[in-house]
Amino acid sequence: MAKSKKAKEKEAAPAATGSFRAALRAGEGFDLLALDTGSTPGFDGDKEAGEALMPELAETAGDLQERLYAESKLGGKRKVLLVIQGMDTSGKGGIMRHVVGAMDPQGSEITSFKSPTKEELSHHFLWRIRKALPKPGMIGVFDRSHYEDVLIVRVHNLVPPEEWGQRYGEINAFEQEVVGDDTTVIKVMLHISSDEQKERLMERLDRPDKHWKFNPGDIEQRREWPDYMEAYQAAIEKCSTDVAPWYVVPADKKWYARLAVMNLLIEHLEELDPQWPEVDFDVEEQKQLLAET
Amino acid sequence: MAKSKKAKEKEAAPAATGSFRAALRAGEGFDLLALDTGSTPGFDGDKEAGEALMPELAETAGDLQERLYAESKLGGKRKVLLVIQGMDTSGKGGIMRHVVGAMDPQGSEITSFKSPTKEELSHHFLWRIRKALPKPGMIGVFDRSHYEDVLIVRVHNLVPPEEWGQRYGEINAFEQEVVGDDTTVIKVMLHISSDEQKERLMERLDRPDKHWKFNPGDIEQRREWPDYMEAYQAAIEKCSTDVAPWYVVPADKKWYARLAVMNLLIEHLEELDPQWPEVDFDVEEQKQLLAET
Repeated sequence: MAKSKKAKEKEAAPAATGSFRAALRAGEGFDLLALDTGSTPGFDGDKEAGEALMPELAETAGDLQERLYAESKLGGKRKVLLVIQGMDTSGKGGIMRHVVGAMDPQGSEITSFKSPTKEELSHHFLWRIRKALPKPGMIGVFDRSHYEDVLIVRVHNLVPPEEWGQRYGEINAFEQEVVGDDTTVIKVMLHISSDEQKERLMERLDRPDKHWKFNPGDIEQRREWPDYMEAYQAAIEKCSTDVAPWYVVPADKKWYARLAVMNLLIEHLEELDPQWPEVDFDVEEQKQLLAET
Repeated sequence: MAKSKKAKEKEAAPAATGSFRAALRAGEGFDLLALDTGSTPGFDGDKEAGEALMPELAETAGDLQERLYAESKLGGKRKVLLVIQGMDTSGKGGIMRHVVGAMDPQGSEITSFKSPTKEELSHHFLWRIRKALPKPGMIGVFDRSHYEDVLIVRVHNLVPPEEWGQRYGEINAFEQEVVGDDTTVIKVMLHISSDEQKERLMERLDRPDKHWKFNPGDIEQRREWPDYMEAYQAAIEKCSTDVAPWYVVPADKKWYARLAVMNLLIEHLEELDPQWPEVDFDVEEQKQLLAET
Protein backbone atom coordinates (compact mmCIF):
# COMPACT_ATOMS: atom_id res chain seq x y z
CA MET A 1 0.00 0.00 0.00
CA ALA A 2 3.04 2.23 0.57
CA LYS A 3 3.64 2.12 -3.17
CA SER A 4 0.23 3.63 -3.84
CA LYS A 5 0.93 6.61 -1.62
CA LYS A 6 4.26 7.08 -3.30
CA ALA A 7 2.60 6.96 -6.70
CA LYS A 8 0.08 9.56 -5.61
CA GLU A 9 2.77 11.92 -4.37
CA LYS A 10 4.59 11.57 -7.64
CA GLU A 11 1.57 12.32 -9.66
CA ALA A 12 1.41 15.71 -7.96
CA ALA A 13 4.83 16.56 -9.48
CA PRO A 14 4.96 20.15 -10.70
CA ALA A 15 5.29 20.15 -14.49
CA ALA A 16 2.29 17.91 -15.33
CA THR A 17 -0.20 20.72 -15.50
CA GLY A 18 -3.80 19.73 -14.98
CA SER A 19 -5.82 17.13 -16.79
CA PHE A 20 -4.83 15.88 -20.21
CA ARG A 21 -8.27 14.33 -20.54
CA ALA A 22 -9.92 17.70 -20.27
CA ALA A 23 -7.37 19.38 -22.52
CA LEU A 24 -7.49 16.81 -25.33
CA ARG A 25 -11.07 15.57 -25.46
CA ALA A 26 -12.83 16.17 -28.75
CA GLY A 27 -16.14 17.68 -27.73
CA GLU A 28 -19.02 19.57 -29.29
CA GLY A 29 -17.94 21.58 -32.35
CA PHE A 30 -14.51 19.95 -32.57
CA ASP A 31 -12.55 21.08 -35.63
CA LEU A 32 -9.53 18.99 -36.57
CA LEU A 33 -8.13 21.48 -39.06
CA ALA A 34 -8.21 24.28 -36.51
CA LEU A 35 -5.99 22.34 -34.10
CA ASP A 36 -2.33 23.36 -33.94
CA THR A 37 -0.38 20.12 -34.43
CA GLY A 38 2.66 21.71 -32.81
CA SER A 39 0.89 22.73 -29.59
CA THR A 40 1.13 21.03 -26.19
CA PRO A 41 -2.32 21.23 -24.52
CA GLY A 42 -2.34 20.49 -20.81
CA PHE A 43 1.40 20.97 -20.46
CA ASP A 44 3.35 24.20 -20.23
CA GLY A 45 6.84 22.76 -19.96
CA ASP A 46 9.36 22.18 -22.75
CA LYS A 47 10.83 19.00 -24.23
CA GLU A 48 13.40 18.59 -21.50
CA ALA A 49 10.80 18.97 -18.76
CA GLY A 50 8.44 16.59 -20.54
CA GLU A 51 11.05 13.89 -21.02
CA ALA A 52 12.23 14.22 -17.43
CA LEU A 53 8.73 13.34 -16.24
CA MET A 54 8.49 10.10 -18.17
CA PRO A 55 10.36 7.70 -15.86
CA GLU A 56 8.17 8.49 -12.85
CA LEU A 57 5.03 8.46 -14.96
CA ALA A 58 6.07 5.05 -16.25
CA GLU A 59 6.40 3.85 -12.67
CA THR A 60 2.98 5.21 -11.76
CA ALA A 61 1.41 3.58 -14.82
CA GLY A 62 3.21 0.32 -14.10
CA ASP A 63 1.96 0.27 -10.52
CA LEU A 64 -1.64 0.93 -11.55
CA GLN A 65 -1.44 -1.67 -14.27
CA GLU A 66 -0.16 -4.31 -11.88
CA ARG A 67 -3.05 -3.60 -9.52
CA LEU A 68 -5.54 -3.92 -12.35
CA TYR A 69 -3.95 -7.23 -13.30
CA ALA A 70 -3.91 -8.46 -9.68
CA GLU A 71 -7.58 -7.54 -9.29
CA SER A 72 -8.47 -9.81 -12.21
CA LYS A 73 -6.72 -12.78 -10.61
CA LEU A 74 -9.36 -12.75 -7.89
CA GLY A 75 -12.33 -12.31 -10.15
CA GLY A 76 -12.14 -8.67 -11.28
CA LYS A 77 -13.48 -8.10 -14.79
CA ARG A 78 -12.19 -4.64 -15.57
CA LYS A 79 -9.83 -3.96 -18.45
CA VAL A 80 -8.63 -1.07 -20.60
CA LEU A 81 -8.61 -0.65 -24.37
CA LEU A 82 -6.27 1.97 -25.79
CA VAL A 83 -6.94 2.71 -29.46
CA ILE A 84 -4.17 4.51 -31.35
CA GLN A 85 -4.93 6.03 -34.76
CA GLY A 86 -2.99 8.45 -36.91
CA MET A 87 -1.58 9.04 -40.37
CA ASP A 88 1.63 7.28 -41.46
CA THR A 89 4.64 8.54 -39.47
CA SER A 90 2.39 10.11 -36.83
CA GLY A 91 4.26 8.19 -34.13
CA LYS A 92 2.08 5.16 -33.42
CA GLY A 93 5.14 2.94 -33.17
CA GLY A 94 6.78 5.35 -30.75
CA ILE A 95 3.74 5.17 -28.48
CA MET A 96 3.96 1.37 -28.50
CA ARG A 97 7.64 1.50 -27.69
CA HIS A 98 7.82 4.31 -25.18
CA VAL A 99 4.41 4.32 -23.48
CA VAL A 100 3.15 0.74 -23.74
CA GLY A 101 6.74 -0.55 -23.58
CA ALA A 102 7.27 1.25 -20.26
CA MET A 103 4.87 -1.13 -18.53
CA ASP A 104 5.19 -4.83 -17.71
CA PRO A 105 4.71 -6.71 -21.00
CA GLN A 106 2.66 -9.34 -19.15
CA GLY A 107 -0.13 -6.82 -18.53
CA SER A 108 -0.62 -5.43 -22.00
CA GLU A 109 -1.23 -6.80 -25.45
CA ILE A 110 -0.71 -4.93 -28.70
CA THR A 111 -2.72 -5.83 -31.77
CA SER A 112 -1.67 -4.26 -35.06
CA PHE A 113 -4.44 -4.16 -37.60
CA LYS A 114 -3.06 -4.37 -41.12
CA SER A 115 -5.00 -4.59 -44.38
CA PRO A 116 -7.65 -7.21 -43.69
CA THR A 117 -6.96 -10.75 -44.89
CA LYS A 118 -9.31 -12.61 -47.19
CA GLU A 119 -10.79 -14.41 -44.21
CA GLU A 120 -11.27 -11.16 -42.28
CA LEU A 121 -12.93 -9.57 -45.30
CA SER A 122 -15.40 -12.44 -45.46
CA HIS A 123 -16.70 -11.42 -42.01
CA HIS A 124 -18.30 -8.29 -40.59
CA PHE A 125 -15.67 -5.56 -40.16
CA LEU A 126 -15.90 -5.83 -36.37
CA TRP A 127 -15.20 -9.58 -36.36
CA ARG A 128 -11.43 -9.31 -36.15
CA ILE A 129 -11.75 -6.45 -33.67
CA ARG A 130 -13.87 -8.45 -31.24
CA LYS A 131 -11.34 -11.29 -31.28
CA ALA A 132 -8.64 -8.89 -30.10
CA LEU A 133 -10.53 -7.27 -27.21
CA PRO A 134 -8.56 -7.33 -23.94
CA LYS A 135 -9.16 -9.94 -21.27
CA PRO A 136 -9.89 -8.96 -17.65
CA GLY A 137 -6.96 -7.21 -15.98
CA MET A 138 -5.25 -6.40 -19.27
CA ILE A 139 -4.50 -3.24 -21.17
CA GLY A 140 -5.29 -4.00 -24.79
CA VAL A 141 -3.67 -1.68 -27.30
CA PHE A 142 -4.86 -1.33 -30.88
CA ASP A 143 -2.32 -0.03 -33.38
CA ARG A 144 -4.93 1.06 -35.93
CA SER A 145 -8.39 -0.32 -35.33
CA HIS A 146 -11.98 -0.58 -36.53
CA TYR A 147 -11.67 3.10 -37.43
CA GLU A 148 -9.70 2.10 -40.53
CA ASP A 149 -13.07 0.89 -41.79
CA VAL A 150 -14.28 4.48 -41.91
CA LEU A 151 -10.92 6.01 -42.87
CA ILE A 152 -9.03 4.30 -45.71
CA VAL A 153 -12.23 2.47 -46.61
CA ARG A 154 -14.08 5.77 -46.94
CA VAL A 155 -11.29 7.61 -48.77
CA HIS A 156 -10.92 4.81 -51.31
CA ASN A 157 -14.58 3.76 -51.31
CA LEU A 158 -13.50 0.17 -50.69
CA VAL A 159 -17.15 -0.52 -49.91
CA PRO A 160 -20.13 1.48 -51.21
CA PRO A 161 -20.81 4.79 -49.37
CA GLU A 162 -24.09 3.44 -47.96
CA GLU A 163 -22.10 0.71 -46.32
CA TRP A 164 -19.35 2.80 -44.73
CA GLY A 165 -21.96 5.41 -43.90
CA GLN A 166 -23.68 2.90 -41.63
CA ARG A 167 -20.52 2.00 -39.83
CA TYR A 168 -20.39 5.04 -37.55
CA GLY A 169 -23.56 3.90 -35.87
CA GLU A 170 -22.33 0.32 -35.73
CA ILE A 171 -19.09 1.47 -34.12
CA ASN A 172 -20.95 3.49 -31.50
CA ALA A 173 -23.18 0.53 -30.65
CA PHE A 174 -20.14 -1.76 -30.50
CA GLU A 175 -18.18 0.55 -28.24
CA GLN A 176 -21.19 0.99 -25.97
CA GLU A 177 -21.28 -2.78 -25.62
CA VAL A 178 -17.54 -2.99 -24.93
CA VAL A 179 -17.79 -0.30 -22.26
CA GLY A 180 -20.76 -2.18 -20.79
CA ASP A 181 -18.43 -5.17 -20.48
CA ASP A 182 -16.25 -3.32 -17.92
CA THR A 183 -13.83 -1.93 -20.46
CA THR A 184 -12.41 1.57 -20.21
CA VAL A 185 -11.98 2.74 -23.80
CA ILE A 186 -9.39 5.42 -24.58
CA LYS A 187 -9.35 6.50 -28.23
CA VAL A 188 -6.38 8.57 -29.35
CA MET A 189 -5.68 10.24 -32.66
CA LEU A 190 -2.06 11.32 -33.13
CA HIS A 191 -2.43 14.45 -35.22
CA ILE A 192 0.51 15.66 -37.32
CA SER A 193 0.70 18.24 -40.08
CA SER A 194 1.32 17.30 -43.69
CA ASP A 195 4.64 19.17 -43.55
CA GLU A 196 5.74 17.21 -40.51
CA GLN A 197 4.91 13.98 -42.33
CA LYS A 198 6.99 15.07 -45.27
CA GLU A 199 9.99 15.63 -43.02
CA ARG A 200 9.57 12.28 -41.32
CA LEU A 201 9.26 10.44 -44.62
CA MET A 202 12.37 12.23 -45.88
CA GLU A 203 14.23 11.06 -42.78
CA ARG A 204 13.25 7.49 -43.56
CA LEU A 205 14.73 7.90 -47.02
CA ASP A 206 17.86 9.58 -45.70
CA ARG A 207 18.73 6.83 -43.22
CA PRO A 208 19.56 3.31 -44.46
CA ASP A 209 18.40 1.90 -41.11
CA LYS A 210 14.98 3.46 -41.75
CA HIS A 211 14.54 2.47 -45.40
CA TRP A 212 12.53 -0.61 -44.49
CA LYS A 213 9.89 1.61 -42.88
CA PHE A 214 9.33 3.47 -46.14
CA ASN A 215 6.75 2.43 -48.68
CA PRO A 216 6.49 4.16 -52.06
CA GLY A 217 2.71 4.08 -51.54
CA ASP A 218 3.20 6.56 -48.69
CA ILE A 219 3.84 9.33 -51.22
CA GLU A 220 0.72 8.44 -53.17
CA GLN A 221 -1.32 8.75 -49.99
CA ARG A 222 -0.05 12.26 -49.35
CA ARG A 223 -2.19 13.46 -52.25
CA GLU A 224 -5.21 12.23 -50.35
CA TRP A 225 -4.31 14.14 -47.19
CA PRO A 226 -7.41 16.42 -47.32
CA ASP A 227 -9.67 13.39 -47.85
CA TYR A 228 -8.12 11.66 -44.85
CA MET A 229 -8.55 14.74 -42.69
CA GLU A 230 -12.20 14.86 -43.72
CA ALA A 231 -12.60 11.19 -42.85
CA TYR A 232 -10.93 11.70 -39.46
CA GLN A 233 -13.10 14.74 -38.77
CA ALA A 234 -16.23 12.69 -39.53
CA ALA A 235 -15.11 9.74 -37.41
CA ILE A 236 -14.32 11.97 -34.45
CA GLU A 237 -17.50 14.01 -34.81
CA LYS A 238 -19.77 10.99 -35.09
CA CYS A 239 -17.98 8.67 -32.66
CA SER A 240 -16.75 10.88 -29.83
CA THR A 241 -19.44 9.68 -27.44
CA ASP A 242 -19.84 10.12 -23.70
CA VAL A 243 -18.92 6.51 -23.01
CA ALA A 244 -16.01 6.46 -25.46
CA PRO A 245 -14.77 9.94 -26.34
CA TRP A 246 -11.94 10.71 -28.75
CA TYR A 247 -8.77 12.43 -27.59
CA VAL A 248 -6.88 14.27 -30.30
CA VAL A 249 -3.19 14.64 -29.47
CA PRO A 250 -1.10 17.19 -31.37
CA ALA A 251 1.83 15.04 -32.44
CA ASP A 252 4.36 17.15 -34.33
CA LYS A 253 6.36 17.03 -31.10
CA LYS A 254 7.00 13.37 -30.41
CA TRP A 255 7.96 13.94 -26.78
CA TYR A 256 4.64 15.68 -26.14
CA ALA A 257 2.54 12.99 -27.82
CA ARG A 258 4.19 10.35 -25.63
CA LEU A 259 3.74 12.42 -22.49
CA ALA A 260 0.11 13.06 -23.36
CA VAL A 261 -0.80 9.43 -24.06
CA MET A 262 1.01 8.29 -20.90
CA ASN A 263 -0.99 10.82 -18.88
CA LEU A 264 -4.27 9.88 -20.56
CA LEU A 265 -3.62 6.28 -19.62
CA ILE A 266 -2.74 7.17 -16.03
CA GLU A 267 -5.75 9.44 -15.58
CA HIS A 268 -8.08 6.69 -16.71
CA LEU A 269 -6.37 4.07 -14.56
CA GLU A 270 -6.55 6.38 -11.55
CA GLU A 271 -10.25 6.72 -12.06
CA LEU A 272 -10.53 2.94 -11.99
CA ASP A 273 -8.42 3.04 -8.81
CA PRO A 274 -7.63 -0.70 -8.75
CA GLN A 275 -6.70 -2.13 -5.35
CA TRP A 276 -4.60 -5.12 -4.30
CA PRO A 277 -7.24 -7.79 -3.92
CA GLU A 278 -8.21 -9.42 -0.64
CA VAL A 279 -7.29 -13.10 -0.69
CA ASP A 280 -9.62 -15.83 0.49
CA PHE A 281 -7.12 -17.83 2.56
CA ASP A 282 -5.90 -17.28 6.11
CA VAL A 283 -2.50 -15.62 5.72
CA GLU A 284 -1.24 -16.50 9.21
CA GLU A 285 -2.23 -20.11 8.79
CA GLN A 286 -0.40 -20.30 5.46
CA LYS A 287 2.71 -18.78 7.04
CA GLN A 288 2.60 -21.50 9.67
CA LEU A 289 2.18 -24.23 7.08
CA LEU A 290 4.98 -22.83 4.96
CA ALA A 291 7.33 -22.58 7.94
CA GLU A 292 6.83 -26.29 8.53
CA THR A 293 7.97 -27.31 5.05
CA MET B 1 24.72 1.47 -39.47
CA ALA B 2 26.39 3.76 -36.92
CA LYS B 3 24.09 2.21 -34.33
CA SER B 4 25.43 -1.24 -35.09
CA LYS B 5 29.00 -0.16 -34.52
CA LYS B 6 27.98 1.46 -31.26
CA ALA B 7 26.21 -1.70 -30.20
CA LYS B 8 29.29 -3.75 -30.98
CA GLU B 9 31.57 -1.48 -28.98
CA LYS B 10 29.22 -1.73 -26.03
CA GLU B 11 29.11 -5.44 -26.18
CA ALA B 12 32.83 -5.47 -25.54
CA ALA B 13 32.23 -3.79 -22.14
CA PRO B 14 34.49 -5.25 -19.43
CA ALA B 15 32.29 -7.00 -16.84
CA ALA B 16 30.41 -9.37 -19.18
CA THR B 17 32.92 -12.15 -18.94
CA GLY B 18 32.92 -14.56 -21.84
CA SER B 19 30.07 -16.55 -23.23
CA PHE B 20 26.99 -17.28 -21.17
CA ARG B 21 26.00 -19.88 -23.74
CA ALA B 22 29.12 -21.88 -23.05
CA ALA B 23 28.85 -21.41 -19.29
CA LEU B 24 25.19 -22.40 -18.97
CA ARG B 25 24.60 -25.07 -21.57
CA ALA B 26 23.46 -28.41 -20.19
CA GLY B 27 25.72 -30.91 -21.90
CA GLU B 28 26.75 -34.52 -21.56
CA GLY B 29 26.52 -35.74 -17.94
CA PHE B 30 24.61 -32.71 -16.73
CA ASP B 31 23.54 -33.01 -13.08
CA LEU B 32 20.90 -30.58 -11.89
CA LEU B 33 21.32 -31.33 -8.20
CA ALA B 34 25.05 -30.70 -8.36
CA LEU B 35 24.54 -27.16 -9.66
CA ASP B 36 24.96 -24.34 -7.13
CA THR B 37 21.78 -22.26 -7.45
CA GLY B 38 23.57 -19.28 -5.90
CA SER B 39 26.45 -19.25 -8.39
CA THR B 40 26.98 -16.84 -11.30
CA PRO B 41 28.53 -18.80 -14.19
CA GLY B 42 30.04 -16.67 -16.93
CA PHE B 43 30.15 -13.57 -14.76
CA ASP B 44 32.65 -12.61 -12.10
CA GLY B 45 31.15 -9.28 -11.05
CA ASP B 46 28.77 -8.59 -8.17
CA LYS B 47 25.14 -7.43 -8.09
CA GLU B 48 25.99 -3.79 -8.58
CA ALA B 49 28.20 -4.53 -11.57
CA GLY B 50 25.57 -6.83 -13.06
CA GLU B 51 22.75 -4.33 -12.72
CA ALA B 52 24.89 -1.54 -14.12
CA LEU B 53 25.31 -3.54 -17.32
CA MET B 54 21.61 -4.00 -17.96
CA PRO B 55 20.72 -0.68 -19.62
CA GLU B 56 23.37 -1.06 -22.32
CA LEU B 57 22.59 -4.72 -22.81
CA ALA B 58 18.93 -3.75 -23.23
CA GLU B 59 19.94 -1.29 -25.92
CA THR B 60 22.02 -3.92 -27.72
CA ALA B 61 19.19 -6.44 -27.56
CA GLY B 62 16.69 -3.82 -28.73
CA ASP B 63 18.85 -2.91 -31.70
CA LEU B 64 19.31 -6.55 -32.75
CA GLN B 65 15.61 -7.23 -32.30
CA GLU B 66 14.66 -4.28 -34.48
CA ARG B 67 16.97 -5.55 -37.24
CA LEU B 68 15.42 -9.02 -37.05
CA TYR B 69 11.98 -7.44 -37.30
CA ALA B 70 13.04 -5.19 -40.20
CA GLU B 71 14.49 -8.18 -42.04
CA SER B 72 11.11 -9.91 -41.91
CA LYS B 73 9.37 -6.94 -43.51
CA LEU B 74 11.31 -7.64 -46.69
CA GLY B 75 10.78 -11.36 -46.74
CA GLY B 76 13.06 -12.66 -43.97
CA LYS B 77 11.71 -15.76 -42.24
CA ARG B 78 13.93 -15.94 -39.16
CA LYS B 79 12.52 -15.72 -35.66
CA VAL B 80 13.48 -16.57 -32.09
CA LEU B 81 11.70 -18.67 -29.49
CA LEU B 82 12.71 -18.14 -25.87
CA VAL B 83 11.32 -20.82 -23.56
CA ILE B 84 11.33 -20.01 -19.84
CA GLN B 85 10.75 -22.80 -17.32
CA GLY B 86 11.23 -22.94 -13.57
CA MET B 87 9.56 -23.77 -10.29
CA ASP B 88 7.09 -21.34 -8.72
CA THR B 89 8.83 -18.12 -7.59
CA SER B 90 11.90 -18.91 -9.69
CA GLY B 91 11.62 -15.50 -11.35
CA LYS B 92 9.85 -16.18 -14.65
CA GLY B 93 7.76 -13.03 -14.25
CA GLY B 94 10.87 -10.97 -13.56
CA ILE B 95 12.42 -12.20 -16.82
CA MET B 96 9.28 -11.13 -18.68
CA ARG B 97 9.35 -7.73 -17.05
CA HIS B 98 13.05 -6.93 -17.02
CA VAL B 99 14.46 -8.79 -20.02
CA VAL B 100 11.59 -9.11 -22.49
CA GLY B 101 10.14 -5.79 -21.25
CA ALA B 102 13.41 -4.02 -22.06
CA MET B 103 12.78 -4.49 -25.78
CA ASP B 104 10.21 -2.92 -28.08
CA PRO B 105 6.88 -4.62 -27.29
CA GLN B 106 6.07 -4.68 -31.01
CA GLY B 107 8.85 -7.19 -31.63
CA SER B 108 8.07 -9.78 -28.98
CA GLU B 109 5.08 -11.79 -27.91
CA ILE B 110 4.71 -13.54 -24.56
CA THR B 111 2.50 -16.61 -24.26
CA SER B 112 1.76 -17.88 -20.75
CA PHE B 113 0.80 -21.52 -20.67
CA LYS B 114 -1.57 -22.22 -17.78
CA SER B 115 -3.31 -25.48 -16.94
CA PRO B 116 -4.69 -26.65 -20.27
CA THR B 117 -8.33 -25.88 -21.01
CA LYS B 118 -10.83 -28.58 -21.87
CA GLU B 119 -10.41 -27.75 -25.54
CA GLU B 120 -6.62 -27.89 -25.30
CA LEU B 121 -6.79 -31.23 -23.50
CA SER B 122 -8.87 -32.65 -26.33
CA HIS B 123 -5.94 -32.09 -28.70
CA HIS B 124 -2.37 -33.39 -28.84
CA PHE B 125 -0.27 -31.66 -26.17
CA LEU B 126 1.68 -29.76 -28.83
CA TRP B 127 -1.46 -28.32 -30.43
CA ARG B 128 -1.62 -25.19 -28.28
CA ILE B 129 2.16 -24.80 -28.49
CA ARG B 130 2.18 -24.76 -32.29
CA LYS B 131 -0.49 -22.07 -32.34
CA ALA B 132 1.76 -19.81 -30.27
CA LEU B 133 4.97 -20.18 -32.31
CA PRO B 134 6.49 -16.82 -33.27
CA LYS B 135 5.97 -15.27 -36.69
CA PRO B 136 8.93 -14.17 -38.84
CA GLY B 137 10.89 -11.30 -37.32
CA MET B 138 9.46 -11.85 -33.86
CA ILE B 139 10.86 -13.01 -30.54
CA GLY B 140 8.28 -15.40 -29.13
CA VAL B 141 8.53 -15.97 -25.40
CA PHE B 142 6.95 -18.94 -23.64
CA ASP B 143 6.24 -18.51 -19.93
CA ARG B 144 6.07 -22.26 -19.22
CA SER B 145 5.73 -24.43 -22.29
CA HIS B 146 5.32 -27.92 -23.72
CA TYR B 147 7.77 -29.02 -21.01
CA GLU B 148 4.95 -28.84 -18.48
CA ASP B 149 3.70 -31.95 -20.24
CA VAL B 150 6.72 -33.86 -18.94
CA LEU B 151 6.98 -31.99 -15.62
CA ILE B 152 3.73 -31.56 -13.67
CA VAL B 153 2.15 -34.20 -15.89
CA ARG B 154 4.89 -36.68 -14.98
CA VAL B 155 4.99 -35.82 -11.27
CA HIS B 156 1.22 -36.22 -10.95
CA ASN B 157 0.86 -38.93 -13.58
CA LEU B 158 -1.84 -36.88 -15.28
CA VAL B 159 -1.47 -39.26 -18.20
CA PRO B 160 -0.18 -42.85 -18.01
CA PRO B 161 3.64 -43.21 -17.78
CA GLU B 162 3.78 -44.80 -21.26
CA GLU B 163 2.22 -41.66 -22.61
CA TRP B 164 4.43 -39.07 -20.92
CA GLY B 165 7.38 -41.36 -21.54
CA GLN B 166 6.86 -40.95 -25.30
CA ARG B 167 6.73 -37.21 -25.12
CA TYR B 168 10.47 -36.60 -24.85
CA GLY B 169 10.92 -38.01 -28.31
CA GLU B 170 7.92 -36.10 -29.61
CA ILE B 171 9.33 -32.88 -28.16
CA ASN B 172 12.70 -33.46 -29.80
CA ALA B 173 11.07 -34.12 -33.17
CA PHE B 174 8.88 -31.03 -32.75
CA GLU B 175 11.79 -28.77 -31.84
CA GLN B 176 13.82 -30.12 -34.74
CA GLU B 177 10.96 -29.12 -37.02
CA VAL B 178 10.69 -25.66 -35.44
CA VAL B 179 14.43 -25.08 -35.83
CA GLY B 180 14.11 -26.24 -39.45
CA ASP B 181 11.53 -23.50 -39.91
CA ASP B 182 14.20 -20.80 -39.31
CA THR B 183 13.57 -20.52 -35.58
CA THR B 184 16.38 -20.06 -33.08
CA VAL B 185 15.23 -21.91 -29.97
CA ILE B 186 16.61 -20.84 -26.56
CA LYS B 187 15.42 -23.00 -23.68
CA VAL B 188 16.09 -21.69 -20.19
CA MET B 189 15.46 -23.28 -16.83
CA LEU B 190 15.59 -20.86 -13.90
CA HIS B 191 17.00 -23.00 -11.13
CA ILE B 192 16.41 -22.02 -7.49
CA SER B 193 16.91 -23.96 -4.28
CA SER B 194 14.03 -25.15 -2.16
CA ASP B 195 15.16 -22.81 0.63
CA GLU B 196 15.13 -19.84 -1.70
CA GLN B 197 11.60 -20.72 -2.75
CA LYS B 198 10.53 -20.86 0.88
CA GLU B 199 11.86 -17.35 1.46
CA ARG B 200 10.16 -16.01 -1.64
CA LEU B 201 6.83 -17.57 -0.71
CA MET B 202 7.15 -16.14 2.79
CA GLU B 203 7.70 -12.70 1.27
CA ARG B 204 4.49 -13.09 -0.71
CA LEU B 205 2.66 -13.82 2.54
CA ASP B 206 4.34 -10.96 4.37
CA ARG B 207 3.40 -8.29 1.85
CA PRO B 208 -0.29 -7.47 1.23
CA ASP B 209 0.60 -6.27 -2.28
CA LYS B 210 1.97 -9.75 -3.00
CA HIS B 211 -0.81 -11.84 -1.46
CA TRP B 212 -2.53 -12.25 -4.82
CA LYS B 213 0.53 -14.05 -6.16
CA PHE B 214 0.30 -16.70 -3.44
CA ASN B 215 -1.64 -19.89 -3.86
CA PRO B 216 -2.11 -22.34 -0.96
CA GLY B 217 -1.38 -25.10 -3.46
CA ASP B 218 2.20 -23.78 -3.66
CA ILE B 219 2.93 -25.27 -0.23
CA GLU B 220 1.53 -28.64 -1.25
CA GLN B 221 3.85 -28.65 -4.25
CA ARG B 222 6.90 -28.11 -2.06
CA ARG B 223 6.54 -31.67 -0.83
CA GLU B 224 7.02 -32.80 -4.39
CA TRP B 225 10.25 -30.83 -4.83
CA PRO B 226 12.45 -33.95 -5.30
CA ASP B 227 9.99 -35.35 -7.86
CA TYR B 228 10.07 -32.09 -9.78
CA MET B 229 13.86 -32.03 -9.73
CA GLU B 230 13.87 -35.56 -11.10
CA ALA B 231 11.43 -34.57 -13.83
CA TYR B 232 13.54 -31.52 -14.74
CA GLN B 233 16.69 -33.64 -14.80
CA ALA B 234 15.00 -36.09 -17.17
CA ALA B 235 13.65 -33.35 -19.44
CA ILE B 236 17.03 -31.67 -19.66
CA GLU B 237 18.91 -34.91 -20.16
CA LYS B 238 16.61 -36.18 -22.88
CA CYS B 239 15.85 -32.90 -24.64
CA SER B 240 19.09 -30.91 -24.55
CA THR B 241 19.83 -31.53 -28.21
CA ASP B 242 22.35 -29.97 -30.55
CA VAL B 243 19.68 -28.00 -32.38
CA ALA B 244 17.86 -26.93 -29.21
CA PRO B 245 20.02 -27.22 -26.11
CA TRP B 246 18.91 -26.40 -22.58
CA TYR B 247 20.52 -23.59 -20.60
CA VAL B 248 20.23 -23.95 -16.83
CA VAL B 249 20.51 -20.59 -15.07
CA PRO B 250 21.23 -20.51 -11.32
CA ALA B 251 18.46 -18.21 -10.15
CA ASP B 252 18.76 -17.65 -6.40
CA LYS B 253 20.23 -14.27 -7.36
CA LYS B 254 17.56 -12.52 -9.39
CA TRP B 255 19.96 -9.94 -10.81
CA TYR B 256 22.17 -12.72 -12.16
CA ALA B 257 19.32 -14.66 -13.73
CA ARG B 258 18.18 -11.53 -15.60
CA LEU B 259 21.71 -10.72 -16.71
CA ALA B 260 22.23 -14.29 -17.87
CA VAL B 261 19.00 -14.53 -19.88
CA MET B 262 19.63 -11.12 -21.46
CA ASN B 263 23.09 -12.26 -22.52
CA LEU B 264 21.82 -15.60 -23.82
CA LEU B 265 19.34 -13.72 -25.96
CA ILE B 266 21.98 -11.31 -27.24
CA GLU B 267 24.49 -14.04 -28.01
CA HIS B 268 21.92 -15.89 -30.10
CA LEU B 269 20.78 -12.73 -31.87
CA GLU B 270 24.38 -11.83 -32.62
CA GLU B 271 24.89 -15.19 -34.22
CA LEU B 272 21.86 -14.48 -36.44
CA ASP B 273 23.47 -11.11 -37.19
CA PRO B 274 20.36 -9.55 -38.77
CA GLN B 275 21.01 -6.64 -41.14
CA TRP B 276 18.90 -3.67 -42.19
CA PRO B 277 17.30 -4.99 -45.35
CA GLU B 278 17.98 -3.66 -48.82
CA VAL B 279 14.85 -2.08 -50.23
CA ASP B 280 13.61 -2.71 -53.76
CA PHE B 281 12.81 0.88 -54.70
CA ASP B 282 15.10 3.65 -55.96
CA VAL B 283 15.77 5.81 -52.90
CA GLU B 284 16.87 8.89 -54.85
CA GLU B 285 13.81 8.71 -57.08
CA GLN B 286 11.54 8.50 -54.05
CA LYS B 287 13.24 11.50 -52.47
CA GLN B 288 12.55 13.44 -55.65
CA LEU B 289 8.90 12.39 -55.70
CA LEU B 290 8.47 13.20 -52.03
CA ALA B 291 10.05 16.63 -52.44
CA GLU B 292 7.44 17.42 -55.09
CA THR B 293 4.49 16.75 -52.77
